[in-house]
Amino acid sequence: MEKLLREILNEIKPLEEEIERERGIYKEIKEIIEENGVKCVLVGSLAKGTDLRGDKDIDIFIKFPEDLSREELEENGLRIGMEVFKRIKVKPEIDYAEHPYVRGTYKGYNVDIVPCYDTKNPKSAVDRTPYHTEYVMKKLRENKGMGDEIRLLKQFMKGINVYGAEARVEGFSGYLTELLVINYGSFLDTLRAVSKWKFREVIDLENLWGNEELPRYFFPDSSLIVIDPVDENRNVAAAVSVQRLSEFIVNAREFLRSPRREFFFPKKRDVPSKKIIMQKISERKTKLVAVHFNHKGMNENLLYSQLRKTINSIIKSIEKFNFKTIKQDIWADDEIGVMLFEFEIWKLPRIVHHYGPSIYSSGRDQEKFLRKYEMDKPYIEGYRWVVDKKRRFSRIEDAMNLILERKDGFGKNLRRVEFKISINDEILSIEKEEFFRFLAEFLRI
Amino acid sequence: MEKLLREILNEIKPLEEEIERERGIYKEIKEIIEENGVKCVLVGSLAKGTDLRGDKDIDIFIKFPEDLSREELEENGLRIGMEVFKRIKVKPEIDYAEHPYVRGTYKGYNVDIVPCYDTKNPKSAVDRTPYHTEYVMKKLRENKGMGDEIRLLKQFMKGINVYGAEARVEGFSGYLTELLVINYGSFLDTLRAVSKWKFREVIDLENLWGNEELPRYFFPDSSLIVIDPVDENRNVAAAVSVQRLSEFIVNAREFLRSPRREFFFPKKRDVPSKKIIMQKISERKTKLVAVHFNHKGMNENLLYSQLRKTINSIIKSIEKFNFKTIKQDIWADDEIGVMLFEFEIWKLPRIVHHYGPSIYSSGRDQEKFLRKYEMDKPYIEGYRWVVDKKRRFSRIEDAMNLILERKDGFGKNLRRVEFKISINDEILSIEKEEFFRFLAEFLRI
Repeated sequence: MEKLLREILNEIKPLEEEIERERGIYKEIKEIIEENGVKCVLVGSLAKGTDLRGDKDIDIFIKFPEDLSREELEENGLRIGMEVFKRIKVKPEIDYAEHPYVRGTYKGYNVDIVPCYDTKNPKSAVDRTPYHTEYVMKKLRENKGMGDEIRLLKQFMKGINVYGAEARVEGFSGYLTELLVINYGSFLDTLRAVSKWKFREVIDLENLWGNEELPRYFFPDSSLIVIDPVDENRNVAAAVSVQRLSEFIVNAREFLRSPRREFFFPKKRDVPSKKIIMQKISERKTKLVAVHFNHKGMNENLLYSQLRKTINSIIKSIEKFNFKTIKQDIWADDEIGVMLFEFEIWKLPRIVHHYGPSIYSSGRDQEKFLRKYEMDKPYIEGYRWVVDKKRRFSRIEDAMNLILERKDGFGKNLRRVEFKISINDEILSIEKEEFFRFLAEFLRI
Repeated sequence: MEKLLREILNEIKPLEEEIERERGIYKEIKEIIEENGVKCVLVGSLAKGTDLRGDKDIDIFIKFPEDLSREELEENGLRIGMEVFKRIKVKPEIDYAEHPYVRGTYKGYNVDIVPCYDTKNPKSAVDRTPYHTEYVMKKLRENKGMGDEIRLLKQFMKGINVYGAEARVEGFSGYLTELLVINYGSFLDTLRAVSKWKFREVIDLENLWGNEELPRYFFPDSSLIVIDPVDENRNVAAAVSVQRLSEFIVNAREFLRSPRREFFFPKKRDVPSKKIIMQKISERKTKLVAVHFNHKGMNENLLYSQLRKTINSIIKSIEKFNFKTIKQDIWADDEIGVMLFEFEIWKLPRIVHHYGPSIYSSGRDQEKFLRKYEMDKPYIEGYRWVVDKKRRFSRIEDAMNLILERKDGFGKNLRRVEFKISINDEILSIEKEEFFRFLAEFLRI
């Protein structure tokens, strides 16, 4: 184990030359910013010394005095950011977090220049970031080796695909990963603790709440609760999905049982052949339905969160029509988005057994029902009226067409896209290696 | 309305000659019984004057002193009964109620000779019967016309098929029908009240409970509560099924809206042709499955109650295998019994999405699950283990074969019969007119 971890660390620790290059870039930009009479600060894993080899993010926050209005802060932030990129001859882009900010690619690095308030009472995630950096740096100063332990955990999480708070992953953010190691002391102690986590585990590093019951009550929807040491009312793990949390716990257990390099650097599975996929589909005797579309370069976070919202709405509609899925999942790349459904019930009789009012209900309700369905010959079942009426949709294809037309509960940005439906083998017309890998996973090949 | 009811009454009131013949038979038998030094009493609708024309039941109870043991009562009852039939030269049969009793057919009448205790504290339904007769006779003496009103209600109930407490009907007994008219005063007033009955209506003629809430609490499973005037702890309507009760209420409403002779004397529907039945089956696009058997002359009450018990158990098993019916019903004649199922879901994929333990459950449980389903590649869904394993039965035929073999929860007397399964058009091989009528009703032809 010791040897394995040492080997991994050797591969993931940033090289001395990387660090020097990054420091140089920061110094260069810092000087330009400070010419404007404001202070700035390096944040993120680079500042904390918890970054991995090959990481290409340099995050710089400009600190503005608290009495500045939000408009002035945004204006000054953008102006200074634009000036920086102009001076270093980089084409800037404006992106949006809580405030708009400027980003650009310089010497191969993604440089973000973000305005924030220099305040002791941070009101936004952006304002909180410098405090996060400060908190972690303080802890790492007290324990020099901890940075490497954090690097190991980050790489482990990347390997098992639970790292990153973005909508695509819904996993563990860098800050959350750092807090876990700070709390448990080392990479291995973290995995040992994680492997024994209880349902709705509470981690409160600075003991800000004093007990576990109150935070559970305060964060009722979270499956993991990690109190932010710089803001007791914030759950750092709020964005972690149940799925990623479970995968993390199970992988921690498996790694402790048999530690292997593959947890950190998994081998990519072979792309399955069309023949094998088709075989598996016909073997399961289910019905696969893919709803796919060209997303025309939609922002990834937006795309994934709207795919999730939309697939949940579609499932609700499907159930209203009495069809039933075994499971469903989403997939996307930089071109298309896919919602994939596997059906247990996709064909239904022509009639539906439709319950009407109780025979004890108001005469008006009963007469209305009896008149409406007169031709279908209503009858009594127990104490209710019932009728075997024509079902609206007997085939999932027809129901799905209506659902995609109505777009009830669809994500806002998915209301304008043009959906296509592919069934079973037709799905293989989405000829992308990564999608085939996703299919193989979905079909348990 | 008046005219219609007068006409009906003319058709259903017993003829003078019938009454004389019945009185003669009773007198003849009474004399033989009393030679044995015991008293007897005529009970039932004949005694009360609430019988219909053509009724062929003469029920005579022999009253034994209270201090007789149960064995002696049964012995003496049988002995005297046998002697009666020997003397009038009729082949007797022994049947069983709470006590065994003797019955025979004499001059076209079904004569029952039943032993009971002459007691003021009846402990069984049999002992209670003379008191029921007495109560009704007293009420009818106070109101001469009420007997005819009861006759109208009985015929109405027969016409709409809710008359009779036997297992085949699960409807209204003669005594219950009499109590309703006694309570509401006339045939029409009864229908008017019935048409407005509330859910779990309480009728307490002698106000023995003093309120409606207590009896509702005391008879929690009854959908209609009619307190027995001779025993406040007995619900005379206990055997009325929700189905028959609802049909009675709805028919009462319809009759009041448009009074027609057909309610009393419904026309039998034409026997539908095989072609029409087959057409309807294929039109509904459901799957019909009939489980049928030769019941070898099983007692009708036993047969129907066991058919009901058995069909409920089969439905439970069907649902365990994830199939689903739209509805089901039972049918029988003097030869065969049929359980008919109409399926909404009768075919399922080869795999089933099978949930295992939570990832937070004991390690042993999880390992057991993972080992058991290793070949099927378990995975995580939310916080649970799940596996897409081979489904046991993909077709209802296969599941039904196992269910009929296992006989879980089947009625005792249906454990030895030989079941056959018929699917869709095959069902028409049960070539019986009454069954075809039942099919037409079931399929809403």
